[in-house]
Amino acid sequence: MKEIYFDHIAATPLSPEVREAMYPFFAGHFGNAQSRHPYGKVPRAALEAARGEIARLIHGEPEEIFFTSSGSESNNLAVKGVAQAYAKRGRHIVASVIEHHSVINPVRSLERQGYQVTWIPVDGNGLVDPGQVEASLGEQTVLLSVMMANNEIGTIEPILRLGEIAQAREVPFHTDAVAAAGMIPIDVQRLGVDLLSLAAPTFGGPKGAAALYVRRGTRILPLIEGGIQEEGRRSGTENVAAVVGMGVAAAAALRQLPWRRDHLIRLRDLLQEGLGKIRYLRLTGDLRQRLPHVVSFCAEYVDGEALVRTLADEGIFAASGSSCTSYALKISPVLTAMGIPANVAQGGVVISLGIENTLEEVQHFLAVFPGILDRLRSVSPLYSDARRKEGEL
Amino acid sequence: MKEIYFDHIAATPLSPEVREAMYPFFAGHFGNAQSRHPYGKVPRAALEAARGEIARLIHGEPEEIFFTSSGSESNNLAVKGVAQAYAKRGRHIVASVIEHHSVINPVRSLERQGYQVTWIPVDGNGLVDPGQVEASLGEQTVLLSVMMANNEIGTIEPILRLGEIAQAREVPFHTDAVAAAGMIPIDVQRLGVDLLSLAAPTFGGPKGAAALYVRRGTRILPLIEGGIQEEGRRSGTENVAAVVGMGVAAAAALRQLPWRRDHLIRLRDLLQEGLGKIRYLRLTGDLRQRLPHVVSFCAEYVDGEALVRTLADEGIFAASGSSCTSYALKISPVLTAMGIPANVAQGGVVISLGIENTLEEVQHFLAVFPGILDRLRSVSPLYSDARRKEGEL
Repeated sequence: MKEIYFDHIAATPLSPEVREAMYPFFAGHFGNAQSRHPYGKVPRAALEAARGEIARLIHGEPEEIFFTSSGSESNNLAVKGVAQAYAKRGRHIVASVIEHHSVINPVRSLERQGYQVTWIPVDGNGLVDPGQVEASLGEQTVLLSVMMANNEIGTIEPILRLGEIAQAREVPFHTDAVAAAGMIPIDVQRLGVDLLSLAAPTFGGPKGAAALYVRRGTRILPLIEGGIQEEGRRSGTENVAAVVGMGVAAAAALRQLPWRRDHLIRLRDLLQEGLGKIRYLRLTGDLRQRLPHVVSFCAEYVDGEALVRTLADEGIFAASGSSCTSYALKISPVLTAMGIPANVAQGGVVISLGIENTLEEVQHFLAVFPGILDRLRSVSPLYSDARRKEGEL
Repeated sequence: MKEIYFDHIAATPLSPEVREAMYPFFAGHFGNAQSRHPYGKVPRAALEAARGEIARLIHGEPEEIFFTSSGSESNNLAVKGVAQAYAKRGRHIVASVIEHHSVINPVRSLERQGYQVTWIPVDGNGLVDPGQVEASLGEQTVLLSVMMANNEIGTIEPILRLGEIAQAREVPFHTDAVAAAGMIPIDVQRLGVDLLSLAAPTFGGPKGAAALYVRRGTRILPLIEGGIQEEGRRSGTENVAAVVGMGVAAAAALRQLPWRRDHLIRLRDLLQEGLGKIRYLRLTGDLRQRLPHVVSFCAEYVDGEALVRTLADEGIFAASGSSCTSYALKISPVLTAMGIPANVAQGGVVISLGIENTLEEVQHFLAVFPGILDRLRSVSPLYSDARRKEGEL
């Protein structure tokens, strides 16, 4: 059975180019980048080269890129680091309700410590309303955090507009671009964001490598304190091999962005077109402001977990939600926030495409999916009721 | 010119066994360990196997091992996580003055937030006095942090005694074992430690992999909040390949501990014997309670940086202090804390041995070192003065 990997938000395969760039740093170039003798030299130069590639991907400066170990760490550093650095100015935070848990939970921690939080709702497509964000910002607001694109529904938020609003009010603006980086063009200058999280595993780089962009002049306190690495903003021996892999992946993502996007959008749109014909199935997220590689939907009268498991039995690997919560939660808070009722939201599925996916894979999926869905639905008494109502049974 | 690598505290070479265990996780097994489909299965099993190996190395239980990205992160998590979890009980912390910066700086942060801190001094050999620690513990004390062995002077602290004291007073006890793990036998049961930091790069594992042991029942708040990874105590996509490498390195360290130790102690003692004969050179740290692989000394009338650079020109790679601070500090706070005057401490050098170092390398070092030192000293007017006083010039 041919396997079809449709879960690129959870992890992407590494290209041979990425792997080959990394391996010398597990062998001859094993040195510590802080060592002053020659064993530190190549690792240090490699770190700085990678910093440059990552800066280029988002149009930042190398000095504005700080390496971390994961998108979650970048988000925690941004939220806690900025809130604490600006605590004297005020203690009000604004964030959307569909942020990743690595933004939501740190914000909740700060709330328990006495910060005021305004949670910005989303509409039925998962979009925040810039007017609502603008109205929420006050003198005391020290952080606005709205993700660039949501990892479960693919919706791209109006970051350009939010950046204008934040800049006008001089509120530090963080965006979690983990799902978006490498998939859509990002220009931190144009967007007016002050902090941006990105992580290698979502764009062909290795686990253990991620970064936070911090605009020059934006104050931030470290989460991991200690040595002098990353200008004191993130201590700990640098994970040289992983960072090198991230740099190569960033360069490839930037270079290949136009054709990657075209390829992904073509597959995505075919999938959405096919899925759109299936009844009691609702595509989720905004269909225009949308990541090129994410297809998300809720199938009624079926459990998303069961659907994903059955697809896996057929060699098709998708997800029922965020991989950071899939073991923990039955129903996605993102779908709930969009007003999707629990009985529909429990049938949530996320397909995330990668550059190695093919037209044939998409066609195969569309050929087998309706049968799989029918088979699962056939055991649901609610489904029988629905069909009965429509006069089919 | 043959190169001699004497800086294993900064980084250790990875064995082929470690590398070969890691590489499949950059290729076919690239999946996210949280994915419920088959791509998650092998990474998840590999994570748990590594957890078991790391638990075995320190005689803990697998459920007590939490993966982090560096020793610095483990230390930050231990210090901040415990202090915050026990804040209702009290706000007093006890730590030694020679802790790594990734303990010192988080403790200082907590101090700024209103915690009381008692800094325990060390004697001329870098040892803390258990009686002094005992006297410092009070009703309000929520954390004792004393490192197992110091990375700059090799002194092993009286952890067994400190553990008894902490247990009797029911104070959570953290020890930073980053320099010690894999080099000396560690048994968390016998030692009575509640939290222990260790990091792969110091015992033949890759950068990006580290762990914190947290005894069952010890409360701790997460530093990186978000998803469900590591039981919610450390969120972020797991760095599977690095953790796998750490597991293999831990198993090798445990298996080979007896002969590794014998080999290292033999080389260490030869070095110390040879260095002990050089005048105006003082071996630092305790000579009995000592890591098997660390030789440290201060050479008078010479700058440690210059000495290390000149050694590097001869193909011998040592360090002038902690690699986490070597670019930042002229004089080690550890040496200062031991009462070593600045003019002596500035000549500090750390040689850290590895299993691949040989008797021949040590003999070569001892053959060339006195000449290198003399050459450097010859430009020091203070050295001429000293020799003049002794009637040599």
